[in-house]
Amino acid sequence: MIKIGLHGYGNIARGVECAVKQNDDMVVSCVFTRRDPGAVKTISGAPVYRTDDILNHKDDVDVLIMCGGSATDLPEQTPAMAKYFNVVDSFDTHKKIPEHFANVDAAAKESGKIGIISVGWDPGMFSLNRLYGSCILKDGADYTFWGKGVSQGHSDAIRRVDGVIDARQYTIPVEEALDAVRSGSQPELTTREKHTRECFVVAEEGADLKRIENDIVTMKNYFDEYDTTVHFISQEELDRDHKGIPHGGFVIRTGKTGQNLEHNNVIEYSLKLDSNPEFTSCVIVAYARAAYRLNKEGLSGCKTVFDIAPAYLSDKSGEELRKAML
Amino acid sequence: MIKIGLHGYGNIARGVECAVKQNDDMVVSCVFTRRDPGAVKTISGAPVYRTDDILNHKDDVDVLIMCGGSATDLPEQTPAMAKYFNVVDSFDTHKKIPEHFANVDAAAKESGKIGIISVGWDPGMFSLNRLYGSCILKDGADYTFWGKGVSQGHSDAIRRVDGVIDARQYTIPVEEALDAVRSGSQPELTTREKHTRECFVVAEEGADLKRIENDIVTMKNYFDEYDTTVHFISQEELDRDHKGIPHGGFVIRTGKTGQNLEHNNVIEYSLKLDSNPEFTSCVIVAYARAAYRLNKEGLSGCKTVFDIAPAYLSDKSGEELRKAML
Repeated sequence: MIKIGLHGYGNIARGVECAVKQNDDMVVSCVFTRRDPGAVKTISGAPVYRTDDILNHKDDVDVLIMCGGSATDLPEQTPAMAKYFNVVDSFDTHKKIPEHFANVDAAAKESGKIGIISVGWDPGMFSLNRLYGSCILKDGADYTFWGKGVSQGHSDAIRRVDGVIDARQYTIPVEEALDAVRSGSQPELTTREKHTRECFVVAEEGADLKRIENDIVTMKNYFDEYDTTVHFISQEELDRDHKGIPHGGFVIRTGKTGQNLEHNNVIEYSLKLDSNPEFTSCVIVAYARAAYRLNKEGLSGCKTVFDIAPAYLSDKSGEELRKAML
Repeated sequence: MIKIGLHGYGNIARGVECAVKQNDDMVVSCVFTRRDPGAVKTISGAPVYRTDDILNHKDDVDVLIMCGGSATDLPEQTPAMAKYFNVVDSFDTHKKIPEHFANVDAAAKESGKIGIISVGWDPGMFSLNRLYGSCILKDGADYTFWGKGVSQGHSDAIRRVDGVIDARQYTIPVEEALDAVRSGSQPELTTREKHTRECFVVAEEGADLKRIENDIVTMKNYFDEYDTTVHFISQEELDRDHKGIPHGGFVIRTGKTGQNLEHNNVIEYSLKLDSNPEFTSCVIVAYARAAYRLNKEGLSGCKTVFDIAPAYLSDKSGEELRKAML
């Protein structure tokens, strides 16, 4: 059994606990938290320890899954923990991936451990499909669309608007843009043409709804480049109809082949997820198995989904995979 | 430059020549044929030699792409050539893959070369998506649909019917079945429920069309388990409207996540190809690069798409890939 440790205990960690239960060759062996361990109740029943005590539990963990946030937690924690453990994280600040990679690589090479970073669906499965698509169809273009799904960051931004109690923001790909891409015409699309944003907002009683709406739709970086719709609803409605964390999206690569590039070809990968964090956790768990196996083979250093042969994700042998899935 | 040799010169070989032209780091260095070399004119202008002379050209080839048929050519030729060359083939007789793998593995291990078998889209990219999907969503089911596209095997079968001059057969996925799968209900679907078959047939003058239609729709293994439509058209219409070799299809994995498996998730991968052989060739060319690089690193033996880290398909460095695509 592969012993999985969880560093941090939020949505991703709970998703990992659920995902590990679906995999027969692994178990959540322990959870590490900055909170009072007595106040944390795990889904799996795994014991909870203080993060400060983590080095006393090195033998209890084959792979440590880093469940903190990308903004401030993971840039510090993943390299720090790679000094002692095989680690997997879902670091998703695209711009800072090269720096994060270098830090984790240095730590993991020194310790002889494996660190797999930026695992999930974007970065993650979407990245893989961008890579495969671009290697196969060289004369082409790729497009990534997100949604329909909840953007936590945009929901949070709305909540910071004066007079707003609660909010939920959906990112929605524009159907006409998707169709234009699928046609193979390789259109150039602006931000506004690709996605719309729909907001469900609970306002304080007596608040100036016109002003709130204006504050939202004109908000720099978040909404000003999009066509944004704002709906005011009650807290009850929000809780009843918008509690889930669905997400998904599309990676589409179109490209030309043939002697005179006369043939058009479309590769489309899409996700439709009832639970964004649970799906992310499922991907992480598959790559945790890969981290374990790669390290058993004597490899070390930082890896991404690009560097890992797909067979490493599976609990089946090469022979079984070739027979059943090739 | 990676020197690509072509063993055989049909649709796939011509597709490889077009694909190599789209890749800056490789060149088609020579073509080997059983025919009279003087009678073969290549797209790329690469020199043509007799297959019997191939061992005199070992230094002209870094990777030999096997372009013969799966029925009788590749089972013999791929292991035979793996004794001397890095080889890539598109062997697609799913049932015989384990045996083919063993033969190529033994030959390639002895020679210290790499053999990558069953490269294309099914087997190939579709297999990869079945594997990734099943590793991520453990409590789930996957479905493969083919089409809309031309089945060469079924077209050939119709041509063997008495009174038929020419024919083209399209495999078409049933839209209702696709929708049922996408709903996440994990339906059990019969062969008839998944695909229909549409046939365009040119008959001899005065032939008994009713009898031909009946011979087609009741043909064992090919049509009897499907709802099949037969259209009789002229040779001119067939040549005008059905000359292309389009194909494609869908791999869909649906699966449940969450504490009580209460969340549904759908992964869908689809291809819509104007040219089936050209797309297959593009995939083969990307894996030829991988074969070259893996062998340069000192690896040998038989591999499939399952065993090869995605980054090996690219002509870009790990650093560039992480920056641009992760």
